[in-house]
Amino acid sequence: MRAAVVRNRQLVVGDVPEPVPGPGQVLVETIACGICGSDLHGLKYAEKLVEAARASGVPESSPILFDPERDLVMGHEFSARVVELGPGASGLDPGDVVVSIPALATPQGVAVIGYSNDYPGGYAERMVLTAGMCLKVPDGLDPRHAALTEPMAVGLHAVNRAAIQPEESAIVLGCGPVGLAVVAALRLARVRRIVAADFSPARRDLALGLGAHEAVDPNRESAVEVARRIAGAQGLVVFEAVGVPGMLDQAMRAAPRSARILVVGACMETDTVWPLLGLTKELTISFALGYDFAEFARTLDLIAQGDIDVAPLITGEVGISGVPDAFQSLANPDAHAKILVQPALG
Amino acid sequence: MRAAVVRNRQLVVGDVPEPVPGPGQVLVETIACGICGSDLHGLKYAEKLVEAARASGVPESSPILFDPERDLVMGHEFSARVVELGPGASGLDPGDVVVSIPALATPQGVAVIGYSNDYPGGYAERMVLTAGMCLKVPDGLDPRHAALTEPMAVGLHAVNRAAIQPEESAIVLGCGPVGLAVVAALRLARVRRIVAADFSPARRDLALGLGAHEAVDPNRESAVEVARRIAGAQGLVVFEAVGVPGMLDQAMRAAPRSARILVVGACMETDTVWPLLGLTKELTISFALGYDFAEFARTLDLIAQGDIDVAPLITGEVGISGVPDAFQSLANPDAHAKILVQPALG
Repeated sequence: MRAAVVRNRQLVVGDVPEPVPGPGQVLVETIACGICGSDLHGLKYAEKLVEAARASGVPESSPILFDPERDLVMGHEFSARVVELGPGASGLDPGDVVVSIPALATPQGVAVIGYSNDYPGGYAERMVLTAGMCLKVPDGLDPRHAALTEPMAVGLHAVNRAAIQPEESAIVLGCGPVGLAVVAALRLARVRRIVAADFSPARRDLALGLGAHEAVDPNRESAVEVARRIAGAQGLVVFEAVGVPGMLDQAMRAAPRSARILVVGACMETDTVWPLLGLTKELTISFALGYDFAEFARTLDLIAQGDIDVAPLITGEVGISGVPDAFQSLANPDAHAKILVQPALG
Repeated sequence: MRAAVVRNRQLVVGDVPEPVPGPGQVLVETIACGICGSDLHGLKYAEKLVEAARASGVPESSPILFDPERDLVMGHEFSARVVELGPGASGLDPGDVVVSIPALATPQGVAVIGYSNDYPGGYAERMVLTAGMCLKVPDGLDPRHAALTEPMAVGLHAVNRAAIQPEESAIVLGCGPVGLAVVAALRLARVRRIVAADFSPARRDLALGLGAHEAVDPNRESAVEVARRIAGAQGLVVFEAVGVPGMLDQAMRAAPRSARILVVGACMETDTVWPLLGLTKELTISFALGYDFAEFARTLDLIAQGDIDVAPLITGEVGISGVPDAFQSLANPDAHAKILVQPALG
């Protein structure tokens, strides 16, 4: 089948083996799959991802430890239509439209769909999913919008992990898809004041649309200044959703005393911080990755009910053949938020 | 009066102006004052301390922002005898033996005793303290032991901030006075397993004496290996009590998934971390500085009741004239834990 595949460390369009559903698995055809910033990073920093997984205690036998030298089909933010059930799979019928956490139960252990050499992700025409992890997309919800369940769940998880209270305020550094997901979740948590920061006017507009009370240009007002202006006795959480070196230091400088920093941007490279600043302010820095099953399901409901309007985030739609160019386009933050890959487009 | 004074950035023995108790203040004579690792750092990194205070929002008018070019008498871990009450001071009588949080209420704001150009710390014959902040040392408690209230309170605060539960375990990286204080507080919190790590056999022995279940030599077993061995489903907190570059990264590598890291060692220089490791493990890093008044008072009680035996920590006693040499000696971690300055010794 056709896929946008990472082959010899280049993203190319080509043929990959047709996936075959194993026990408890289901064959699906991809309807829509978002291109994630991590995928752009993942191309460049594949070894780092594997090294971090290993350092986190993932055993050598786990399929999570992919091989950057072998073919890999990315894409972990997808909606799909059921084609065929594997042995013992149940609860779904051909034609059902589903979303799923990008985790696949395999005989070798859990694999990450989109970061696996053996199981293609959503930049391919077809995938296999774990039947028991699939959630049916409610009637009336555009499957393209349902594909945004995954990135929006990342925001919900980060906000849950911050345990932010309604009387508290938040600064969100970076309004890419992850920062925007955080903004949406903060608005649903009804926090006192949400200030989003991004150099891009287009992304600031998206942040306002998703519920930020204000969106600032860091060239005009620094995060430190924003923190001074809005932080009160009620507490402040700084969400770092950029994920490039220097941002953690910037968040630590912006944070007032006793503040919490939630790191949700994936900085692949090493970074420099000043621990003394953490001490004198008694900061708490929490890292948030992914979401749990309940958060994922809740996010699908929120999108279906219209509580999170993801439509404005979709700034581009391409077929499989358009993926390599789309990766290039996403380097320009003002042009795009989320580009959806739709195999039906060619 | 005589003092060991930081003058022209050198620690020398000399004369400094006699302190005069202002309203609500009390003049005391120093009985004993511990030499803190921060003081050794403070000599070298004075500008960093001021810069961090400024970055933490301390206003320019605050006496916390000391001038490294001017004379400064360090010493913030002290016990003292009341000599004379200033105007309006009450609740104390000449002859009372007291300890106090090293914070002095002045007309210009709160100054830090031991890091002030205007109010000498415990490396001087006499100091002024805030009468209302003094705690009388209970009868029967050696005032030299009472002087260790301050460093031991740092450990209690860090453990409180970690909110560690009895079913959880802890690794304490570094068994200097701060690490030892953490060990003592962990034992009082009755946590499941306390593993202390230090290159120095003498310090490992002190850790065992204060309640560590085991003390390991990092040359023989790394923190990562210790974590793997003792961490269970019950949770693990890693206390970083060394405070030199590289330790935060080591703590992040040692920490298992979802672990908490408590940074209590003051690393003055910038440090390098790998945020991706924080993300893949979903770590939480909290910084702990100082203690509150209740924690300080509680620590004095614990020492007085014999719940924390500080006597073995006192590895040296010197007069004011011995302070410069003592600073040199403390560079050798195997020879000393806490050296007490006692002006009565000369």
